[in-house]
Amino acid sequence: MAYGASLVINRGLEEEFRSFLGPEGISTDKMDLVTYGYDATRKSYSPCAVVWPVETAQVARIFRIASREGIPVYPRGSGSGMTGGALPVSGGIVLALERMIRILEIDTANRTVTAQPGIFLGDLKKAVQEKGLFYPPDPSSAKVASLGGTLAESSGGLNCVKYGTTKDYVLAVEAVLPDGEIIRLGSKSRKSVSGYNLLQLLIGSEGTLAVITEATLRLVPFPEHRCTFLSRFGSIKDAGKAVLDILNGPVVPSALEFMDRMSLECVDAYMGREQIAPCEAVLLVEADGFDPDTVLRDAQTMEEICRRSGAETVQRATEPEDRESLWEIRRNLSPSMYQKAPFKFNEDISVPVAEFPAVLQEVYQIGAKHGVPVICFGHAGDGNIHVNFMCHTENDPAAHRGIEETFGLAIAHGGTLSGEHGIGITKSEFLPLEWGEREIELMRNVKRLFDPQNILNPGKIFPEKKQGTT
Amino acid sequence: MAYGASLVINRGLEEEFRSFLGPEGISTDKMDLVTYGYDATRKSYSPCAVVWPVETAQVARIFRIASREGIPVYPRGSGSGMTGGALPVSGGIVLALERMIRILEIDTANRTVTAQPGIFLGDLKKAVQEKGLFYPPDPSSAKVASLGGTLAESSGGLNCVKYGTTKDYVLAVEAVLPDGEIIRLGSKSRKSVSGYNLLQLLIGSEGTLAVITEATLRLVPFPEHRCTFLSRFGSIKDAGKAVLDILNGPVVPSALEFMDRMSLECVDAYMGREQIAPCEAVLLVEADGFDPDTVLRDAQTMEEICRRSGAETVQRATEPEDRESLWEIRRNLSPSMYQKAPFKFNEDISVPVAEFPAVLQEVYQIGAKHGVPVICFGHAGDGNIHVNFMCHTENDPAAHRGIEETFGLAIAHGGTLSGEHGIGITKSEFLPLEWGEREIELMRNVKRLFDPQNILNPGKIFPEKKQGTT
Repeated sequence: MAYGASLVINRGLEEEFRSFLGPEGISTDKMDLVTYGYDATRKSYSPCAVVWPVETAQVARIFRIASREGIPVYPRGSGSGMTGGALPVSGGIVLALERMIRILEIDTANRTVTAQPGIFLGDLKKAVQEKGLFYPPDPSSAKVASLGGTLAESSGGLNCVKYGTTKDYVLAVEAVLPDGEIIRLGSKSRKSVSGYNLLQLLIGSEGTLAVITEATLRLVPFPEHRCTFLSRFGSIKDAGKAVLDILNGPVVPSALEFMDRMSLECVDAYMGREQIAPCEAVLLVEADGFDPDTVLRDAQTMEEICRRSGAETVQRATEPEDRESLWEIRRNLSPSMYQKAPFKFNEDISVPVAEFPAVLQEVYQIGAKHGVPVICFGHAGDGNIHVNFMCHTENDPAAHRGIEETFGLAIAHGGTLSGEHGIGITKSEFLPLEWGEREIELMRNVKRLFDPQNILNPGKIFPEKKQGTT
Repeated sequence: MAYGASLVINRGLEEEFRSFLGPEGISTDKMDLVTYGYDATRKSYSPCAVVWPVETAQVARIFRIASREGIPVYPRGSGSGMTGGALPVSGGIVLALERMIRILEIDTANRTVTAQPGIFLGDLKKAVQEKGLFYPPDPSSAKVASLGGTLAESSGGLNCVKYGTTKDYVLAVEAVLPDGEIIRLGSKSRKSVSGYNLLQLLIGSEGTLAVITEATLRLVPFPEHRCTFLSRFGSIKDAGKAVLDILNGPVVPSALEFMDRMSLECVDAYMGREQIAPCEAVLLVEADGFDPDTVLRDAQTMEEICRRSGAETVQRATEPEDRESLWEIRRNLSPSMYQKAPFKFNEDISVPVAEFPAVLQEVYQIGAKHGVPVICFGHAGDGNIHVNFMCHTENDPAAHRGIEETFGLAIAHGGTLSGEHGIGITKSEFLPLEWGEREIELMRNVKRLFDPQNILNPGKIFPEKKQGTT
């Protein structure tokens, strides 16, 4: 894509930005350009400036200038995205939202919180928890992920199986359009059928339609009690049966996580402990609620289901420190895998939940065929499996072929390319596997409708080839 | 709006439709034109033909002809909509979906159902219940409402407070665009962040963007046990406090309905019984679940909350026939009100839940000011209140002013024009009360994107004045 001269922020333009952002509000310093040019994909690009607004009016003014000058703008939370949503792939300006971190209101009566997009999700969750309230979305990166990033990707996490994903909690947003105009969508009312649901069009649009500058989120009472158990199975099929039986049972688990044998081996090696018991699959299951007896009974109900589905062992943890040690296994999973290979491609396919054991068997076959080790874990309760291709080079063509086949497999089983990471740049070439031409054309037209100049986060979601025509 | 000659279905065109719809697939009979020209708003218009497709390919072909000829097409389920979504306001063709009633699949393992849009919601709910599964959306009209109509309006109902509305249950759709092309959106996977969420853009778009010809819906295990209680309060404020305290408590009620004094008086008169106990407000509360003891305990917990909030009486029903007699009160509400006045304007404003007692007080003042009796009831747990202006003529200007003020009030309190009925034609003039110019322009542009010829359900949602420019 050629943005020509617009890619250079000249002295006059820099001064114009500085005039309302202040001296600390813009940088063209080399170090900053490097720091704000990469994200969790480990890819990096070089923007020509970084700007740090602190309020909506500044965001609007930045876009008025950018649209006047035709400069691409890349909104960025904390850069923990897995598919390159924040990467400034065409240069331009990085719109760093990390100083817009205020909680504007916690409305305990209506159980809502209104906050700016730069706040860490972990901080937001803590602030509402202090009022006895719970904001459920909980990606593994919650501590450092920005709220805005989770809105852009409609992030999920561990407890979606009970609570749903980010999109289920957004009541209203204020957002800035690429031409700098401010819009407000949604209301504090939980129900609304007034006009088109543009709110849900923005959530999960990966920061390509508008920049959310304020969001009002629905909260629920904080469930104070939890009971967790880890169950080992001799086969993935048995674990899969337990997942289905739990979901068809009377208790909705607050977490229903799966790990395969290779996952366990990595964690055991990483934590320097002996393999507790060799097994093919593990489920990590949690019940939560407001009454310890009910929660314990709920956990026992699900344990019994696991045993009936062939669980070899069931290890329960009720006390916080014991629960912590079970969750430590899950949390150490991702870092531990880098001991297996320096590069991993974590593809978060999601399939109808009954399909996941069959899909996994085929995924392992794909890995074996291409000679690339595959490690699988994830949110079994949603059918959202993280399939990790472990590689020794960043551009392993065998892994690439394996990934493409895995996406095809997920879609053939009624699934999707992404359960929670989004498409970004890493999956855009695969979009046509899932969507027909007309569907993609409609999406591209929606993009044009919101961003006719293609200056907001260009180069994302849609396959490159046709991007030139946008 | 002038569609000129297109509004007449000439002999040749009629024959073309008949050629693929069969002799029973099209009618220009006067009686049919009357029958399919009205809906639950009691307004009526005259289409020039009614067509009855039985499969998606026929729907596509109908639209190819309609777009070629520039004829407006009005999709219609069973005509139970409250805001005129199915009314053929510009004449044209009524697309009656009442013969597309097949359930294509009930997938018990993945807990989904796939069905055509013409099926009655009640029939769909019954079919899945026979497999131990539950499709929660439950508008009062469920028995006769078509699935397609509930998708078009994202219908709610009694149990949204626990289960959410229609939009929370739609996983995937097949739909026909106004130019006759067939698209597929979503997947059977519960989670997806792949491309823009066009699926949620269609749900609640009141049949103005595309016609859904097949929908895959998420199901949950059927909660077999229920316990219901009716609680009387001396003031709306006390009832409002009970609602908030229940929502902040450990039990999520499966219904949390409110009725005011006038509601009760109407029902009592209608059912020919004496007023059991005069009171200002009633809450009808239900707990559901899988274990009778837990459900009973949950109900008792909520009863206790009601008592602490000043409930004067609490009447519990556990047995089906007793529960039935409590729900009979709620069900008889709507018909009973017609004894008060021949016309009622049921406006389903929705506000943040803590606001509802204050909003009601102001609504009564609005009614008093304009000399129009106002009766309020509704889904208190969602803040979704049905405000009924009772009139002796269809076009009572005082009621119209009262309704406009009520909408302004709802929005001033952070609410919305419609919690579940949609905008249709009856509320379109009020849309600018809730949405800014730019937001409405974005919505109009979305309409143009999907329907550049403006032939699909034209004249709905958007204020008339500017409609001519579409």
